[in-house]
Parts: sequence; structure tokens; C-alpha cells
Amino acid sequence: MTTMSARLDAAIAEVSVEIDRQFDVLLAVPDDPRADLYRAMRHAAMGGGKRLRPLLLFATATLFDVDRACAARAATALEAIHVYSLIHDDLPAMDDDDMRRGKPTVHKVYGEACAILAGDCLHALAFEWLADSDVLPDPFVRADLVLDLARAAGPSGMAGGQMMDLKAEGSRFDLQTVTRLQQLKTGALISAAVEAGAILGRVPPAGRVGLRGYAHDLGLAFQIADDLLDAEGDEALAGKKLRKDEVAGKETFLTLLGAERAREQARMLVDQAIAHLHAYGTEADLLRDIARFVLERDR
Amino acid sequence: MTTMSARLDAAIAEVSVEIDRQFDVLLAVPDDPRADLYRAMRHAAMGGGKRLRPLLLFATATLFDVDRACAARAATALEAIHVYSLIHDDLPAMDDDDMRRGKPTVHKVYGEACAILAGDCLHALAFEWLADSDVLPDPFVRADLVLDLARAAGPSGMAGGQMMDLKAEGSRFDLQTVTRLQQLKTGALISAAVEAGAILGRVPPAGRVGLRGYAHDLGLAFQIADDLLDAEGDEALAGKKLRKDEVAGKETFLTLLGAERAREQARMLVDQAIAHLHAYGTEADLLRDIARFVLERDR
Repeated sequence: MTTMSARLDAAIAEVSVEIDRQFDVLLAVPDDPRADLYRAMRHAAMGGGKRLRPLLLFATATLFDVDRACAARAATALEAIHVYSLIHDDLPAMDDDDMRRGKPTVHKVYGEACAILAGDCLHALAFEWLADSDVLPDPFVRADLVLDLARAAGPSGMAGGQMMDLKAEGSRFDLQTVTRLQQLKTGALISAAVEAGAILGRVPPAGRVGLRGYAHDLGLAFQIADDLLDAEGDEALAGKKLRKDEVAGKETFLTLLGAERAREQARMLVDQAIAHLHAYGTEADLLRDIARFVLERDR
Repeated sequence: MTTMSARLDAAIAEVSVEIDRQFDVLLAVPDDPRADLYRAMRHAAMGGGKRLRPLLLFATATLFDVDRACAARAATALEAIHVYSLIHDDLPAMDDDDMRRGKPTVHKVYGEACAILAGDCLHALAFEWLADSDVLPDPFVRADLVLDLARAAGPSGMAGGQMMDLKAEGSRFDLQTVTRLQQLKTGALISAAVEAGAILGRVPPAGRVGLRGYAHDLGLAFQIADDLLDAEGDEALAGKKLRKDEVAGKETFLTLLGAERAREQARMLVDQAIAHLHAYGTEADLLRDIARFVLERDR
């Protein structure tokens, strides 16, 4: 059963095509000893994933009539950061995963050294792409997008959350600590996607309160849904190994709340996320669809 | 014997203190599960190294009367990129080094996962620090510094050179390919340091030709000197393992040119680098000192 709207279906398909097209151009394989580095980046970046973060960026940018080429560039940089984090998270020294998005992980195909460098390169390229005045002519927009993305990627965001996650094994984290961990690990980049749409739309910070509330609640709902999927999902559909938190003995929303309360909490957060959009009319329907989709997804 | 001028001595000491002071403030250890992540970053970033890149940035910024706080911020971001690359290069899957700057490497002290994340965090923080309008008020300067540094760090710079270096083992690279490899691996970040000084000084690209020539020749001279040091230097003084290129069977300037011609080439490049500064008076004497120092250094 799928309750995805036709509008959301179309948007996901369109964004997926656009992001693949961008990576295809920006990651053209050079004819020199760096060829494998680019092949490794393409392997990880292209042809897979839900593209949730680019979708959120596009959906937010739509509210403010942002130029599509500008939004596409920012969305590609954002996805590059997400992809680099997946490459590094999958490394033997980290989560040691063999499969991702239904394909062998980068280090399985290209070796560990190349995987580390491919992640590092996508990380640097994300900021190079955001700082490109040919595509993003406004220097305030360029600098603010860099700040938004760098904060979300670093120790006060995604990488900081990943560090907490490493420490979670064997620790008895409480609900507050798990919430903070997840806000950093996945919430920060989801918030950065929505924030980037507002930056591109030159919305002053005071005008971003509703969108920030939306992103915050959506991020937590997404993570709870992810925990449920990890515990109850189908590995073939997910395209990656599941039940890892259980094996590692980590506290999650699921272990702390139980499946029923976790599901209820996710539903409440999605309702709250949608309520934060009250100032917007039908132009925000795609953002509302995305929030509902988070509860329904099976991969 | 040392031929370092008193001026260079004083500048190195001053820059070293300033960079350590910046890292000390910017990498304050939080009281939460991310503490080890910050300790790992501090271990790698503080109290060591020649600070050659920050020194070049400060010396260039001096030509244009750049505000010292702006130069210090940019220099710290630049050094953070250099330090992150050392952390990742030292990993078992890369060069597998146990010692760096006379101390155990980050993964030896904090483990591989934490080392990967510490590198990733310094990478993100470098861009966060450059995009901070409180310290760098001009948005053009912020965006241009990000572009400068991101290009120098990514696949067309440092990380691309590192990838070529991985492929160098067993390949019979010729002088042209080794030169290209080194221009990417170490030259790009040295050039970025000088370029950053010019960006901070709001020098239009047409006014940067001499400085770019200086940085280009200096970068190659530095690498040849590094090869000579690797072959002839003292491990205790260098604070790291030497003779690795020889063991790995890689072509270097030394294997391709022989020690005498390599030394002669480095001398010529330093003379050329200094000649590129002809438009500047005594205000560029520190840049000239740095070029001469590259030939004389013993670590």
C-alpha cells in the first residue's frame, strides 16, 4: 500500500533525475591517475537513494520562487555531503557495511584508501560548488549556504552525531541523549536542507521560524521511522543491512519507547511539523506530503 | 648551521603562537560524548608543525595591510585543512603511520573511527570558520576564501594529488606526472595560502600574477626539498618515519633527477620564486626569507 500523492511521486522522480544529471556533469571522469577517484564518487553519488534532502531543499525553494539552477546547485552540494558521510560511515573502522542502496559499498569496490579520499573529495566539492559565482551570483547567498552546510556537517552536526553514535555502544543513553544524538546525526542536515531553501529565497532569519520548526520535527520523525524500519523492515527492500542497532546493543527511540509509543510519537511529530507550515498555502503542499511520506516509507 | 634570518625566526614563533591560540579557542572540548572527538582534533592541530601555510598567508596579507584578526582566521582554516589531510593520510588504509610531529598519530591514540571523524570535522570547521561574518565581514572575501580553499583541498588539489600518490606505487611515473602529482598534493594548498592573502587584501586577479608565480615555484621547491629530506634526513629531527618512498618503490624528483640535479633544481626554483616578487619592496622580505628557508630546513 502506498499513500504517496501523485504530486510527491512526480517531485521525487524529477529531483532524482536532476541530481543525477548534476553529478554526471560535475563528476566527469578525467583521463589521468585520478580516474578511480571519480568513479568511486560516481558509484556512491549516482543512481540511488531517496534524495530526501535535495527534495526538501527544492520544496522549500519553491515557496520563494528561487531560480531552479540555483536550487539544483545547492541541492547537489547538500547531497554530496550526505553521500560523503555514507561512504565514511560504511568503512570497516566505522559501521563496516558491505551494501548500500542495493550496491556494494565504495570500499568494497575501490578499496579503503580510495573510499576515504572519495568521501573527502565530495566534502570539498560541496563547498567548491556552493562558492561558484557563475551559478550563485549573490555573495551573501554563497557565504550563507556554506555556513549553513558546514555547521550541519561538522562536530555540531552530522559528524558530531556520528561520534555520539560510536559512544552509544555499551553506554546507557537516556531519551534526552538519544534525541540530541539524532538531532545532530540526521536532523542537522535535514534542517540545513530547509534552511538552504530559505537562504536561496533571501528570507530574513525572522521569517524562517515556521520552516525551522517544520524541519526540526520532521528530522526527529524521520529518525524514529528509521529506527522502526531498522527493526521491522525488509533488508532486500532497504538495500542495506538492518537490525544493526539491536546487535550493537544501542539505545534507540525504539528500545526506550517501545514500538507503539515510538510510532505514536512519530505521528505526533509529523502533525506538529505540518502545523508549523500554517502561514503557507497550497504552495507548501509538497512539504506537507514529504512529512506524511516519512511515516509511510518502506525503505 | 642555520641561515634563517631573525625576521623569519620571529615570524615563525609569532604565527605558531597565534595558530595554537586560535585552535585552543575554536576547539574547546565540550562536556558531552563528543569530548574525544575534540581531544583528537586538538591532538593533531595544536603544538606542532612548521605552520608553513599560515606563515605564507600572514606574509602575503602583510603586503596589503590586512586586518590581523581576518588573516588569523583564514590562516587557521587553512591549517585545519592541512591537519585533517595529515590525520587521514596517516590512517592504516592510507600511509599507515604511527608517528607525526614527534607524537603518536591520532588513530594510534583515539582509534581509527575517531580519527576519520576528527579529520572530517576539521574539514567542515575550516569552511564554517571562513563563512563566519563576525570575523570576516565582507561576503565576497568569505565566498572567495571558501572557493580558494575548497579547490585546493578537493580532487583538483590536495586529495587528487593524494590519489595520484596511491597510484604511484608500482607505476613508472615520468617527471611530468610526478610534477603534476606534487603540484596537486602539496602545491595546491601552498598556492591557496598565498592566494588567500591576496583575497583578504582585495587584490584583483590581474594583480596576483607575481604572487601566483612565487607560490607555484615555492611549492615545487618545497616538495623537492621534502624528497631530499625523506632520503637524507634524520627521523628523530623530522618526528616522523622517513625513507617511505624508497620502500614503496615510488618515483620522486630524487629518483628521476638524482640528488645533485634535484638540489640544483630546488635552488633554481627558489631563485625564480624570489624573482616573481620584483614588484614588491622590503615589505615582501618575509616571503623571500620563507623561500630561502625551504632549501635550508632540516625537518
